[in-house]
Amino acid sequence: MSTPFQPHLTDIKVRGYHLDLYGHVNNARYLEFLEEARWGFTEDHGSFEAFTKASLAFVIVNINIDYRRPAMMGEQLVIETAMQKIGSRSAMIHQAVKLKGTDTLVAEADVTFVVFSQKTGSAVAMENEVRAIFEALPTWPTKS
Amino acid sequence: MSTPFQPHLTDIKVRGYHLDLYGHVNNARYLEFLEEARWGFTEDHGSFEAFTKASLAFVIVNINIDYRRPAMMGEQLVIETAMQKIGSRSAMIHQAVKLKGTDTLVAEADVTFVVFSQKTGSAVAMENEVRAIFEALPTWPTKS
Amino acid sequence: MSTPFQPHLTDIKVRGYHLDLYGHVNNARYLEFLEEARWGFTEDHGSFEAFTKASLAFVIVNINIDYRRPAMMGEQLVIETAMQKIGSRSAMIHQAVKLKGTDTLVAEADVTFVVFSQKTGSAVAMENEVRAIFEALPTWPTKS
Amino acid sequence: MSTPFQPHLTDIKVRGYHLDLYGHVNNARYLEFLEEARWGFTEDHGSFEAFTKASLAFVIVNINIDYRRPAMMGEQLVIETAMQKIGSRSAMIHQAVKLKGTDTLVAEADVTFVVFSQKTGSAVAMENEVRAIFEALPTWPTKS
Repeated sequence: MSTPFQPHLTDIKVRGYHLDLYGHVNNARYLEFLEEARWGFTEDHGSFEAFTKASLAFVIVNINIDYRRPAMMGEQLVIETAMQKIGSRSAMIHQAVKLKGTDTLVAEADVTFVVFSQKTGSAVAMENEVRAIFEALPTWPTKS
Repeated sequence: MSTPFQPHLTDIKVRGYHLDLYGHVNNARYLEFLEEARWGFTEDHGSFEAFTKASLAFVIVNINIDYRRPAMMGEQLVIETAMQKIGSRSAMIHQAVKLKGTDTLVAEADVTFVVFSQKTGSAVAMENEVRAIFEALPTWPTKS
Repeated sequence: MSTPFQPHLTDIKVRGYHLDLYGHVNNARYLEFLEEARWGFTEDHGSFEAFTKASLAFVIVNINIDYRRPAMMGEQLVIETAMQKIGSRSAMIHQAVKLKGTDTLVAEADVTFVVFSQKTGSAVAMENEVRAIFEALPTWPTKS
Repeated sequence: MSTPFQPHLTDIKVRGYHLDLYGHVNNARYLEFLEEARWGFTEDHGSFEAFTKASLAFVIVNINIDYRRPAMMGEQLVIETAMQKIGSRSAMIHQAVKLKGTDTLVAEADVTFVVFSQKTGSAVAMENEVRAIFEALPTWPTKS
């Protein structure tokens, strides 16, 4: 009945400027990879435009990232992004970075955010239209 | 008898290139601030040289960062860094980013790492000389 | 007879983490965009593998970049990359960043590099096989 | 009579996250080092506050950077910054990156900027009060 689950996919190839002292992708750089993937995720579902119109902004309150395996020069990565859960005041996106075409996990992260109203200057409850936006997004069946 | 606890302190002033879409320091950039502070921390205690000589490397396996308050153009930040705990296979550093001269918390993070031997190609147990290096470092009395 | 000239094309969409204080792509970030495009350029023509095998490295000696028009959130950019000229000791790549689907120039740069031999520890003359690699690459008819 | 010339000095120590594929500071990263130094330069002379009050912004139109010698892990750099020349529509800052305590040049750049009025939406002529601000800044006697 329902469409089979499919996370959003973002491809990134590891380049020389992503690496650090040890020849591995630097741990700060992964947060840019994850942000790149989240923009693609929200864009695919029209969320960013809706948010901007309503003077709402995403504000990240926590990132919990596991580094599983170093990524090296020339490796092709894919970032899988989907909603993890929606609370009353915040919501969580889970993102997995894998070697493309394999199940090898390079990194994975839980990203918790609140929705902030630029009109009222405060966080918005995850209710009604706001909640509906996130409920409509692809959601991980169980945490990978 | 013992010296009163003092975390390592690193000063960073927020500049135009640290900001993003919302005029706040970007969440990936904080990981560079934290790395800068950890290099200063290990350097002050001679750990990096000792590690390099022994062909040991720090490998970060998890970063759990809370973003508490946006940092903006021109703000003066201070990063407090000290050991949090030492396990059998990994250890954790805790870092707090504050507005300088205040108790206002901008961000705080737990950074978990293992020590990797470039000779054996595997993680090293937190025992003997390796454990001694981390036990000699300033350690948070309780998690702030 | 000859194939019509076509520079290498790299697409980049402007994201929140690319911006700075003024809401424009930061000037340092363009150098990452240009590096991304050069890796794609050399990769398409097999140059990087050939270089690595021969223990040769590209070393950039000068970048001269004009910033023509600020790029903003959500804009789709395309980077055009091709060889500009080959001297006796160095060579130059020219890269143009445009708003995709238009002739609007966002930035353009001349990137001068030498080829460095990791075996001899010195720069290599642009002769014989080395010169042949660069002569085989797409070359701008005249500087745009 | 006049104070002897002294460029603005900014210290930066090379850290693991500054490096790339070849173990050298990445060429994009130098532009962040230079920006850091220019903020310090303008700050020391009160220029940024004056500009912000008057709704004026610095807009960089060209950076021409020579990479002279790779900078490596742990090296202590100093960036020397001063005005180079003031034209009718634009002005140029020259910046030299050296190994601290030596004359060894790591990189040097000419940075050309215009002053942009956020009120009129156009560049401002380098006249009167605007020109006076830049004329009061330390200026290189001759290009190093």
